[in-house]
Amino acid sequence: MSAPKKVVLAYSGGLDTSIILKWLQTEYGCEVVTFTADLGQGEELEPARAKAELLGIAPENIFIEDVREEFVRDFVFPMFRANAVYEGLYLLGTSIARPLISKRLVEIAEAVGADAVAHGATGKGNDQVRFELAAYALNPDIKVIAPWREWDLSSRTKLLEFAEANQIPVAKDKRGEAPFSVDANLLHTSSEGKVLEDPAVMAPDYVYQRTVHPEDAPNEPEFIEVGFEQGDAVSINGEAMSPATILTKLNELGGKHGCGRLDLVEGRFVGMKSRGIYETPGGTLLLEAHRGIESITMDRGAMHLKDELMPKYAELIYNGFWYSPEREMLQAAIDASQTHVTGAVRLKLYKGSATCVGRWSDHSLYSEEHVTFEDDAGAYDQKDAAGFIQLQALRLKLIAMRNKRVK
Amino acid sequence: MSAPKKVVLAYSGGLDTSIILKWLQTEYGCEVVTFTADLGQGEELEPARAKAELLGIAPENIFIEDVREEFVRDFVFPMFRANAVYEGLYLLGTSIARPLISKRLVEIAEAVGADAVAHGATGKGNDQVRFELAAYALNPDIKVIAPWREWDLSSRTKLLEFAEANQIPVAKDKRGEAPFSVDANLLHTSSEGKVLEDPAVMAPDYVYQRTVHPEDAPNEPEFIEVGFEQGDAVSINGEAMSPATILTKLNELGGKHGCGRLDLVEGRFVGMKSRGIYETPGGTLLLEAHRGIESITMDRGAMHLKDELMPKYAELIYNGFWYSPEREMLQAAIDASQTHVTGAVRLKLYKGSATCVGRWSDHSLYSEEHVTFEDDAGAYDQKDAAGFIQLQALRLKLIAMRNKRVK
Amino acid sequence: MSAPKKVVLAYSGGLDTSIILKWLQTEYGCEVVTFTADLGQGEELEPARAKAELLGIAPENIFIEDVREEFVRDFVFPMFRANAVYEGLYLLGTSIARPLISKRLVEIAEAVGADAVAHGATGKGNDQVRFELAAYALNPDIKVIAPWREWDLSSRTKLLEFAEANQIPVAKDKRGEAPFSVDANLLHTSSEGKVLEDPAVMAPDYVYQRTVHPEDAPNEPEFIEVGFEQGDAVSINGEAMSPATILTKLNELGGKHGCGRLDLVEGRFVGMKSRGIYETPGGTLLLEAHRGIESITMDRGAMHLKDELMPKYAELIYNGFWYSPEREMLQAAIDASQTHVTGAVRLKLYKGSATCVGRWSDHSLYSEEHVTFEDDAGAYDQKDAAGFIQLQALRLKLIAMRNKRVK
Amino acid sequence: MSAPKKVVLAYSGGLDTSIILKWLQTEYGCEVVTFTADLGQGEELEPARAKAELLGIAPENIFIEDVREEFVRDFVFPMFRANAVYEGLYLLGTSIARPLISKRLVEIAEAVGADAVAHGATGKGNDQVRFELAAYALNPDIKVIAPWREWDLSSRTKLLEFAEANQIPVAKDKRGEAPFSVDANLLHTSSEGKVLEDPAVMAPDYVYQRTVHPEDAPNEPEFIEVGFEQGDAVSINGEAMSPATILTKLNELGGKHGCGRLDLVEGRFVGMKSRGIYETPGGTLLLEAHRGIESITMDRGAMHLKDELMPKYAELIYNGFWYSPEREMLQAAIDASQTHVTGAVRLKLYKGSATCVGRWSDHSLYSEEHVTFEDDAGAYDQKDAAGFIQLQALRLKLIAMRNKRVK
Repeated sequence: MSAPKKVVLAYSGGLDTSIILKWLQTEYGCEVVTFTADLGQGEELEPARAKAELLGIAPENIFIEDVREEFVRDFVFPMFRANAVYEGLYLLGTSIARPLISKRLVEIAEAVGADAVAHGATGKGNDQVRFELAAYALNPDIKVIAPWREWDLSSRTKLLEFAEANQIPVAKDKRGEAPFSVDANLLHTSSEGKVLEDPAVMAPDYVYQRTVHPEDAPNEPEFIEVGFEQGDAVSINGEAMSPATILTKLNELGGKHGCGRLDLVEGRFVGMKSRGIYETPGGTLLLEAHRGIESITMDRGAMHLKDELMPKYAELIYNGFWYSPEREMLQAAIDASQTHVTGAVRLKLYKGSATCVGRWSDHSLYSEEHVTFEDDAGAYDQKDAAGFIQLQALRLKLIAMRNKRVK
Repeated sequence: MSAPKKVVLAYSGGLDTSIILKWLQTEYGCEVVTFTADLGQGEELEPARAKAELLGIAPENIFIEDVREEFVRDFVFPMFRANAVYEGLYLLGTSIARPLISKRLVEIAEAVGADAVAHGATGKGNDQVRFELAAYALNPDIKVIAPWREWDLSSRTKLLEFAEANQIPVAKDKRGEAPFSVDANLLHTSSEGKVLEDPAVMAPDYVYQRTVHPEDAPNEPEFIEVGFEQGDAVSINGEAMSPATILTKLNELGGKHGCGRLDLVEGRFVGMKSRGIYETPGGTLLLEAHRGIESITMDRGAMHLKDELMPKYAELIYNGFWYSPEREMLQAAIDASQTHVTGAVRLKLYKGSATCVGRWSDHSLYSEEHVTFEDDAGAYDQKDAAGFIQLQALRLKLIAMRNKRVK
Repeated sequence: MSAPKKVVLAYSGGLDTSIILKWLQTEYGCEVVTFTADLGQGEELEPARAKAELLGIAPENIFIEDVREEFVRDFVFPMFRANAVYEGLYLLGTSIARPLISKRLVEIAEAVGADAVAHGATGKGNDQVRFELAAYALNPDIKVIAPWREWDLSSRTKLLEFAEANQIPVAKDKRGEAPFSVDANLLHTSSEGKVLEDPAVMAPDYVYQRTVHPEDAPNEPEFIEVGFEQGDAVSINGEAMSPATILTKLNELGGKHGCGRLDLVEGRFVGMKSRGIYETPGGTLLLEAHRGIESITMDRGAMHLKDELMPKYAELIYNGFWYSPEREMLQAAIDASQTHVTGAVRLKLYKGSATCVGRWSDHSLYSEEHVTFEDDAGAYDQKDAAGFIQLQALRLKLIAMRNKRVK
Repeated sequence: MSAPKKVVLAYSGGLDTSIILKWLQTEYGCEVVTFTADLGQGEELEPARAKAELLGIAPENIFIEDVREEFVRDFVFPMFRANAVYEGLYLLGTSIARPLISKRLVEIAEAVGADAVAHGATGKGNDQVRFELAAYALNPDIKVIAPWREWDLSSRTKLLEFAEANQIPVAKDKRGEAPFSVDANLLHTSSEGKVLEDPAVMAPDYVYQRTVHPEDAPNEPEFIEVGFEQGDAVSINGEAMSPATILTKLNELGGKHGCGRLDLVEGRFVGMKSRGIYETPGGTLLLEAHRGIESITMDRGAMHLKDELMPKYAELIYNGFWYSPEREMLQAAIDASQTHVTGAVRLKLYKGSATCVGRWSDHSLYSEEHVTFEDDAGAYDQKDAAGFIQLQALRLKLIAMRNKRVK
């Protein structure tokens, strides 16, 4: 790979990406463009602008954007249509944000004539894969720089020395090492590493950042209604809201009731297992509500097929294959199942749990007429069941007869 | 089908199966053998004996058995190895009990020379299918009598008239109709029908029978440890227990903390949707614990395959295909994955939720050495990730180049 | 089910459906509307009109249509996009025609105000299921009459007696029983029953009807080129043709070279196994050609997903679930994979085999630059493979280390 | 990776692996042990011994083994139980041999105290992955040396110079470059590269090495019978044979009739597409025969599950994951399906095609009694089909009613 001339860096404004910014300048002598996105991580973006300027980035090379609506509408919601969970439990909060960041990095690179993009993910994690696969899928000629895999700043001490040597301001509270590593966006906050590295040891309380402890949550349950149209949430308690507003509101509600905490050991794409603490308050409510509305509006055949496809779909997102033909094929199948997923769901939030306790829809497939224990006025002829069972059983009988014969 | 001569009836001792007993005698003039099983439903079995005798069953034709250990060991545990949930949520508590009952019915029929078995499931539900597919798979020549599909006792009034006309004692509290229908065994209690038939309306509190309301659960969390060997739970808090004892104990713990309630609309095999309230306190703890121990002892490749196979496996059990070659094939695959699923898990039980907060095992695949944020002493070469990503990306790049070319 | 008042009958003009026509009139006293479709079965349709008139059907109640283009465009081609084969071998020639017939039956019923449709499939086969599931899916209120399941005309003698008693002309060669049963359309001819019922015995030569014996095929191979656009065949040897014309031409070519014969024992949806002789000359060429064009234009990720979905898709079509949400979901996924399946394929036809011997496309993903054994000018860095393998191997190494430790 | 001290090399005796042998000695100064296996590639092994000795390998460091029976029994046959084909067509002849070679390399390394193994696969292909994943899975501490990824002998000229400089004898006919690259074993011969690199161009006749041209095959078909026990071939024309003997005989028969040629463009695991010419004469017969015997002895439920699992299974073998928990899980499922796959099949071999024309078994599930068009003496009640269809249709009707309502 020839040396990059102009690099778009995913820049948070924090110490690490500031070091990367400087390192790109000094190592490659290349022009750096910064991209700072508001994905709902809950941090001010303007300090990133100031810091970039301080580090010598020209104003026209500083891109700061609020992408929250795009994030929820085009990434989070499509994923939730699939009820995607990785390894049974993880709601993919980090995984789903990476393709959007890469998409904007590549778009900005094309707009400013940059030949490379750079990210601050380490060589041990999944994020490097997600950033890079997305970038290459969107622009096969782009270069991707991953400084953590290249440089020799392999300890905290070396990083701080580099910062000082390059006039990068280091906040006092960043001098010591953080007790764990955090990633956050509108969908979730993840924490991992260091104090969390022993999976036998319960995560300390201070790790949790956006959900109250279930023990501290209100003593009374709260009931909310989530409205859906074609598989996507569109309202809370009858009030229509934009995608990002809905997720923000669900986060608030879930966080207040201690919902959506997860302590997980997961298998990384790069081969080892890692332990993460995830907080996905709004997503947890959304998944429960989406399953609830599907339960009355989606046919069994469609639902079971979706359930069979989901693990593969979740794995693709986890592994960074958002922009792959197979993810798009699965998305087409999933989206085709959502036409009638319209209606509303009542959730009960209480001390860490969110449970569906009611659901209704004009598109309902639930037929009280058919299912009733009472007289069904001929909607269903119980005698049909005899024939149904006989033919379902026929192959099993043939097997049993055979097995008797040859045993 | 020619008329049965001797029928083994799945007999609970309750009013409905007593009416069936009498109806079999009067309708077919056949000898009736009763089979009453203790599956952990929490009812005394001896009254069933007395009642059967009262209805004229000869003592040698009354079979009463405690099958709880067999139930958990040979049915519940193998199913939990798969982390089986139907339609994302249902733990299959009723579904998994039916094959065992059919198995014993068929075995008793063979032992006493009966040519038929009979059950009390209605023509609208899944249970008729489960009973009958299992029976036919185990004995292709057996006749299965399903009185609810045959007789014309289609209302409560007619049933009571039949009971009175045939000297079947009717308890006072059975004169009125139950407000909903219940099935129970060691794994779960299910309630459905009548007051539960509108899925928009929250289930009334009195429906729940073996779990306290989360609001009434203890205000302090309780931590327990569940030990596993080769995928099956073997101990609680370090104390080794038999399968049924473990499930009983987990039920007690889960019930006390309000765990394992589920309000679900599900797609029945016979074609309509129904709404059920399920309480699976011990099973809910077991599933969380099993996933926890798998998370450190099972490789990603095995786990993701299991996750992909699970929906099909759960569907087979739900639909009554326990004794089918495809369920046995899936079981072989699942069992092959459990060799190293040995270790222990810590669960936190609190106000309706059961969450894994720690897990450890001599068989762990988690390698702190590999995953650490600290110096890993060369266990993992971050530069390998560059090659890994390049080759993962190659096909995506080739697609992107093609798409640019032909657009 | 109340008696039908006006029935649309799938009418071939042959003896069996003429008997059904009469039986509907006499049994139900209902008005009969006939629908006769040209699906490419190679029979004149006008005799069916004359015969229907003879049996008293009013001219406005006789519907005769050429649906060959619709059949290939909307049913056969979408199915071939999936490379669908049932139980590894069967190209679904009968299965795929049934939904179209049901669709037209239901549409005509709605147009003429009929409340029922009727078909001539027996109670042992798959076709009854396919006809009826499609009809019910398209009109849930329609009645479906299946005379073979209702009447007592259970022997050839009784059928002929009924025909004579009702002035139905019986051709001389129909007096004896056919030695096997045949179904034909533009995609295939199937033969089954009677002389074919012993699966150990080779099918006699006279069973085959639209393919020459490979031994009698030309001694020289013939090479043809099939052009594709977005997954569908659009030309042969460079000449653009309509869907039905292409399939007709492929049938001619395949039939001449003895291609597309299949002798299969298959598992019917109704539970037993049956043996069929299938001739699908054009379809066999089409499948080979489609796979060939996919091989250079479709990415591995998409192709492997398609391969995994295919058996389920084929099963749905075989079982009669063309009009089901899950078939539509799978179709959406499959169609999404065909955007770039454009190009051409060269087939060699010789003595019963059709093999792809060349393929080319502007949409090709094949990169000689990458794959070459010669100098690739840096397109591919072989050293990347080392990192790729290391990370692929990591989880296997961790397993091996664990297994050593705990053995 | 520290330098290896003692390396076990997969040694063919040919020029390339002789160069590798020497390069290992000169580059690493390490002791080299050679392993030469008879996998049925059809070459004498003793010349490899002489050549190794000539290159200075001590006699006790030369391992020459006939592993044909192990290859067929433990690798080929288990794979054929699955009817495994990669991307619809490829019988995995190269893929399945690699794990066995790695297994012996690792076992010999452990026996002789070597710390490394080496292979002659290039950095662009799948074989490097297969060799190395197998080696690491069997011994996580082993080093694997892949000289083609390390050295700078990147042209034919450089290789020959190295050979000459190191006194490696070069046969005259090896001075020029081979027109394509070949791999062979008892299951297949593959050819790729160079003259085959343009997938539009038909492979020249001289590429094919173990099958006659269909045009040159006998003008009369030949019929053979293949006997199976529990899924594995055990006899030909009634004569019991060992696994390798059967495959050898099938190769002879298939080769004589021009069966088993395949011209394929496939997706490599390392990301690019490549074109290969495969000849798998015996395997092609075996696959057809195995499908034939399964068709009467295996239940539909088991078969369809197998068909769904197969693409994943084939992909795992292709990608080199033979020794992975997920392949072992799938194998357990597949093997569980083969208990009754016992009986015999008649194949017709003619001018390039092998087709099953008859099959019989004591374990047959085919019931002429059930399927017959004649009177079935009550084996099957056609009226059952009505109930079967009604309940299969119920969910489709509910969908149709809903869709009408909300449209």
